[in-house]
Amino acid sequence: MALGEFDLIAKFFKRPVRRAALGVGDDCALLNVAPGMQLAVSSDMLVEGRHFLSTVAPARLGHKALAVNLSDLAACGARPLAFTLALSLPKSDPVFLEGLASGLFALADEHGIELIGGDTTAGPLNLCITVFGEVPAGRALLRSGARAGDDVWVSHPLGGGLGDARLALEVFRGHVSLGGWEFETVRHAMEQPRPRVALGQALHGLAHSAIDLSDGLLGDLGHVLRASGVGARVDADALPRSPVLAAQPRALQLECGLSGGDDYELLFSAPPARRAAVLAAAQAVGVGVSRIGELQAEPGLRLVDGYGAPLQGDFASFDHFLSA
Amino acid sequence: MALGEFDLIAKFFKRPVRRAALGVGDDCALLNVAPGMQLAVSSDMLVEGRHFLSTVAPARLGHKALAVNLSDLAACGARPLAFTLALSLPKSDPVFLEGLASGLFALADEHGIELIGGDTTAGPLNLCITVFGEVPAGRALLRSGARAGDDVWVSHPLGGGLGDARLALEVFRGHVSLGGWEFETVRHAMEQPRPRVALGQALHGLAHSAIDLSDGLLGDLGHVLRASGVGARVDADALPRSPVLAAQPRALQLECGLSGGDDYELLFSAPPARRAAVLAAAQAVGVGVSRIGELQAEPGLRLVDGYGAPLQGDFASFDHFLSA
Repeated sequence: MALGEFDLIAKFFKRPVRRAALGVGDDCALLNVAPGMQLAVSSDMLVEGRHFLSTVAPARLGHKALAVNLSDLAACGARPLAFTLALSLPKSDPVFLEGLASGLFALADEHGIELIGGDTTAGPLNLCITVFGEVPAGRALLRSGARAGDDVWVSHPLGGGLGDARLALEVFRGHVSLGGWEFETVRHAMEQPRPRVALGQALHGLAHSAIDLSDGLLGDLGHVLRASGVGARVDADALPRSPVLAAQPRALQLECGLSGGDDYELLFSAPPARRAAVLAAAQAVGVGVSRIGELQAEPGLRLVDGYGAPLQGDFASFDHFLSA
Repeated sequence: MALGEFDLIAKFFKRPVRRAALGVGDDCALLNVAPGMQLAVSSDMLVEGRHFLSTVAPARLGHKALAVNLSDLAACGARPLAFTLALSLPKSDPVFLEGLASGLFALADEHGIELIGGDTTAGPLNLCITVFGEVPAGRALLRSGARAGDDVWVSHPLGGGLGDARLALEVFRGHVSLGGWEFETVRHAMEQPRPRVALGQALHGLAHSAIDLSDGLLGDLGHVLRASGVGARVDADALPRSPVLAAQPRALQLECGLSGGDDYELLFSAPPARRAAVLAAAQAVGVGVSRIGELQAEPGLRLVDGYGAPLQGDFASFDHFLSA
C-alpha cells in the first residue's frame, strides 16, 4: 500500500477546491464557517460484514457511506458543507477505489459538498466519514426538544415506507425469498438510502425534535423519549410500508418497520397545530411524511394497532430501550 | 456489541460539555467557531498491526491516536478545539475501553479539548479520530509556503532527536537489541509522541511552511518541496539524535532519523533573518529545534554529510519522493 497510497488518493479523490479554503493534500483542511452559524459534525464508521456485504458494488458503498453521515446532518436540520474520508483497505485496488469514488462524489455533488481531507491505510476494509454542516446558531433540531402533545412523524419515499432495507437483509440472510423486481426494490432501499437533508432544513421552526432512523424506529424513538423526558403512543398500523413489504406476513412487516434499522429516514415531532405546514414542507421537497403517533407526558412507549389495542409481539430494540 | 454499545460509550466516553454547544449523544455535535477564524480539520485512522502492536497498553494507544491527529493541527499552527472518535472493536472489553479513554482524555485535557461525538461498532480493531482546531483566517502554516533561502528546521525533545520511534520498531521486529532503559526510552518515543501544538502556534509570523513528521523526514520534506516548488540541501549529520540512537551504527542512525516515520515532530522553514526568533519561540514552549539545511531554487533534495559531501545510502522514502 505505502508506495501507491498518495498516487491513488490523488487519482481518485483529489478534486478542485470550492468552498473549503484548502482541500485534500495538506496536514489539515481549512473550512470557512459563516458568522452566526454553528458547525454540525458527525462521524460514522462502516465495517465490511457488519454495515455492508462484501458483494456490494463499490459505487453503492461509496453512496451509502456518505448517505448515512448526511442523514445525521439532516436530523439536525444542518446544511452540509464538506466531509473527510478515512479508508482502511486490504489491498490497493483501483477498480474498487474508482467505483467507491464515483458513488461518493455523485452524492456529494448532489448536495454541493466537498471532500476536504482524510487518510488511507492498509487494513481490514473500513470507511470512516466525518461530515460538517452549518446550522443557524441555537436552531439545530435535537433529540431533546420533543414535547408531550406533539405528533410523531416519519419521512419515507413517496409511495414507499420503512423497513425495506431490513427486508432486503432478510433475503440476504436466506430467511425470506422475493421475486426479481421486489428484491431489486428493497435492495435499492438498503444500498442507496436518500438522506433527508432538504426535509431537515425545511423543518426548522416546525419540528420540536428530530432523529434519523439508523438503529430501527423503536430504538431511535427511545433515544428521543429519554432525551426529552416524555413517553409515546405509536400506532403500528400507521407505519408507512412499501407495496413489497406490505405483501409480506404482518409479523414480518412489523419487525422490519419497527425495529429494522438502516432506514435513514427522519423521525420527528411537531405540534398538531403545524400539521398542514409539515405536510406542505414535505411536499415542497418531494418526500413523504406519515403521522404515526403522539408524544405523552407519561414515560414509556405504548405500541397499539389500528384499533388502539396494545400490540403483542417481540421487539428486541423496543425492550432494550424501554429497560435502559 | 449491540446491547452494550450505548452503555459503554456513556460509561467511558461521555463527559460534561464545555466549549461545544452540544456534545456526545445527538445526531451531530455542534461547535461554535469564532468570527475571523478558519476551522482546521484532520482525520487519521489507526489500524492494529499497522499503526500499533496488539501488545500496546490501551492508555498509550488512546494517547497516540489523539496525538497523531493533534500533530496535524500543530503543523497548521491551529489551536485545538474538539475531536470525534469512531471505534471498531472486536469485542466489548471494558478494561480496554477504560484504558483507552484514560490515555485519550489525559492528552485531551492537556490541550483543553473535548470529545464531541463519534461512533462505535463491532469489527477489527480500528480507531478513527477527526480533530478540529481554529486558526486566524488566512494565517495557517502550509506545506506550500516554503521559499528558496529558508532555513530547514526540525523540532525534537530537549536532549532528544528524531528516529527513536523507528529504532523501537526495529527492536520489536527483532532487528536490533537494546538494554532495558534504552528500550524504554525509544518505546516511549514510539508510543507517547508529544504533538507540537504550542510550537505550531508560536511559529505564526516566523515560519513560511510547516509539516508534521509522520512518514519520515525525507518523505515529508518531499511533500513540502513539491508543494512549494523548491529544492533542499540537508545535512544528515545535523539531524538531532537521542543518546540511545547516537550509540547505534551510523547507517542505522541515518535510516531511523531520515526515513523512520512516527516522529510527530514539526519540520518547518523560516528565513535566516528569523533564526533568533525561532530559537526563542521554541525555548518559550520548551521544545528543542535544530537547523538541518536550507531550501534552494534548484528542485530536488541533496543530502550531504557534515563536510558537505554527498551522502551515500539507500533511503526508500527519499527515492520514492524524488521520483514522484
